[in-house]
Amino acid sequence: MSTAQQQRIENVTLATMAGLECGLVANGVLVFSEAGIEFAGPAADAPETPDATVIDGQGGVVTPGLIDCHTHLVWAGSRADEFAQRLHGVSYADIAAAGGGIAATVRATRAASEDALVTAAQPRLNALMREGVTTVEIKSGYGLSLEHERKQLQAARRLGEANPVAVQTTLLAAHAIPPEFKGRGDAYIDEIVDRILPTLADEGLVDAVDAFCESVGFSPAQTERVFKAARQRELPVKLHAEQLTNQHGSALAASYQALSCDHLEYLDEDGVKAMAASGTVAVLLPGAFYFLRETKLPPLELLREHQVPIAIATDANPGTSPILSMQLMLHMAATLFRMTPEACLRGATVNAAQALGLSDRGQLVAGQRADICLWSCKEIAELSYQFGTNPLIDCWYQGVRR
Amino acid sequence: MSTAQQQRIENVTLATMAGLECGLVANGVLVFSEAGIEFAGPAADAPETPDATVIDGQGGVVTPGLIDCHTHLVWAGSRADEFAQRLHGVSYADIAAAGGGIAATVRATRAASEDALVTAAQPRLNALMREGVTTVEIKSGYGLSLEHERKQLQAARRLGEANPVAVQTTLLAAHAIPPEFKGRGDAYIDEIVDRILPTLADEGLVDAVDAFCESVGFSPAQTERVFKAARQRELPVKLHAEQLTNQHGSALAASYQALSCDHLEYLDEDGVKAMAASGTVAVLLPGAFYFLRETKLPPLELLREHQVPIAIATDANPGTSPILSMQLMLHMAATLFRMTPEACLRGATVNAAQALGLSDRGQLVAGQRADICLWSCKEIAELSYQFGTNPLIDCWYQGVRR
Ligand SMILES: [Zn+2]
Ligand SMILES: [Zn+2]
Repeated sequence: MSTAQQQRIENVTLATMAGLECGLVANGVLVFSEAGIEFAGPAADAPETPDATVIDGQGGVVTPGLIDCHTHLVWAGSRADEFAQRLHGVSYADIAAAGGGIAATVRATRAASEDALVTAAQPRLNALMREGVTTVEIKSGYGLSLEHERKQLQAARRLGEANPVAVQTTLLAAHAIPPEFKGRGDAYIDEIVDRILPTLADEGLVDAVDAFCESVGFSPAQTERVFKAARQRELPVKLHAEQLTNQHGSALAASYQALSCDHLEYLDEDGVKAMAASGTVAVLLPGAFYFLRETKLPPLELLREHQVPIAIATDANPGTSPILSMQLMLHMAATLFRMTPEACLRGATVNAAQALGLSDRGQLVAGQRADICLWSCKEIAELSYQFGTNPLIDCWYQGVRR
Repeated sequence: MSTAQQQRIENVTLATMAGLECGLVANGVLVFSEAGIEFAGPAADAPETPDATVIDGQGGVVTPGLIDCHTHLVWAGSRADEFAQRLHGVSYADIAAAGGGIAATVRATRAASEDALVTAAQPRLNALMREGVTTVEIKSGYGLSLEHERKQLQAARRLGEANPVAVQTTLLAAHAIPPEFKGRGDAYIDEIVDRILPTLADEGLVDAVDAFCESVGFSPAQTERVFKAARQRELPVKLHAEQLTNQHGSALAASYQALSCDHLEYLDEDGVKAMAASGTVAVLLPGAFYFLRETKLPPLELLREHQVPIAIATDANPGTSPILSMQLMLHMAATLFRMTPEACLRGATVNAAQALGLSDRGQLVAGQRADICLWSCKEIAELSYQFGTNPLIDCWYQGVRR
């Protein structure tokens, strides 16, 4: 019975995200239950729902729940100390030589128990949820061994079970070369494709597979071996691509029908065309752009011209984007990338769902999951224009107010 | 009795802000009541306080309450629509010609009642308080007439009375030329110095006087007339200076012993020296720098070299910094301005107090006001390193937990 209890939000503008732009419906009505969305449209067309609980939206805006489609949310340790050292003039090379950088996070994550990882990640997840996130992707990539990648992914699964939020896991074993494989990148790729990936996939811990294809990461050839292993397990792939240099990783990923390529500051038109042809989403990460004081913008014009869907995400991680705020990403995508408010919101909903291969969310359409945000805004532009006041009034996860 | 009730925070690191850097005290104890701070120092030296309520800080950090020393918090209307227009390619000139920009905020603010201004500003103030702000400066400057500047300042005073936060008011009548004085800047300065400033000062609504000295604002000569009028009422002055061009406003302000000069991207060494000589604080506004995608950094090295105290603030306003977050300012000052975590925290506490001419707060020292933040951090670097999780555990305003 309780799952059938209808709820009805009235007196709102709906941003349904159906069609192009945001599919705005003035004076809209949304009818839903735990089973999903039943109706989203103009009040004039709304069905009668005599048994529904009615919520007066007071002229606000209703959107799909926000989706953060690229995070590294599960890590242990803090890199605040090395952040401070950098600001005090210590060079990155000296910090790395002293065991800092990603190596420090790998050490701390390996040393932490699964419980400790869950405990450390919980406040980060709370921060995202507080701002309206109802689906979050979480990557591994600080374990870098079967045991510790498993631990990270299990922690991610547990976070999803313990909280009213959907967690999608991504295996990013090919994030960095672990110390025990130093100088033997190909041997580590062997370990990934022969053991880590198939084992964790068979254990049901992997929703997608990712890699860091970069001059300071893995080569396109190494990346392709990971993609082939993913294909053998019928897992979709994603790629950290063209963040610091153009490795043509996006075209490679597109040839494997990647769900998304992420970062993309150095993406060229050939890569854009390849992504367009394969239906791959461009996931832009304004937090990392800001935190690294990058000046090269991703090729927004080309992406638009070739109609590549654009998503935005926090890239939450301790090294290059220690930022737990999708609302700030909306603000930064507009401010730094000059994306329109409509594009920002699509990037945090329908396009982010596509970047995760999820077709059951990201729009306010009958039959979709009832992941819903009610905002105290008159217009969606406010969501990317003003930051700090958190206009989220209410949020429903699978039809239940959280 | 209740005002004498002692409280005692134990098991924390104190960032007292006494002396240079942050005056850190490991294993510190803070004893305070509504009357003020009684003791701040190492546990070994702490007095016995058998009647005190004891708070276990659980290894966190205690700092003075944050001070946002530059805001335009009281305004009416939203500029989200013109923000969206800009992102859709409409030129600034076209928006201004259509009555947008600051003119739109002036129109809306004039049209709003004092009650409406208070209601509109309350969620902005809530956002600041939620992140640990205990003192906030609020400028007028969207009224631009005696009646409407008074209304803005009265709204600011009411916000201070209705909330557990101290409000310092600043008269910024010389923010822009109002429409009825179009092309007659000097006549508007007459109105300010002859009527607006003396009247509102006599009504007790003005704690300090500010002006916008800029090629697109008021000239140094016009600014100086405002300063002279302020001096006649014995009011301290501040200045929006060298934001877009070098008008040598800072040197002028320094010659009037200005409390602060604010923005300062185009400040030169002569201006820095003048500020150093007059004890004027440099208030840097990373939110406006970010929002305007400014690339010219304020002269941080020169300011440090000449030992000019540096404060940071939100500049919260609807046109150039629609951002209500001092924690984000800490993050941006570190990330964009490369300020050390210690400098960021000084900028949001002791130096911000100096920028407001307040010597009774901004440090954890016996005799200061008991405006106190308890943070779930191990080290102060975390306050400018990770954004979004709001590590504020507790906040006391004049000794009362809020
Ligand atoms: Zn990433
Ligand atoms: Zn200002």
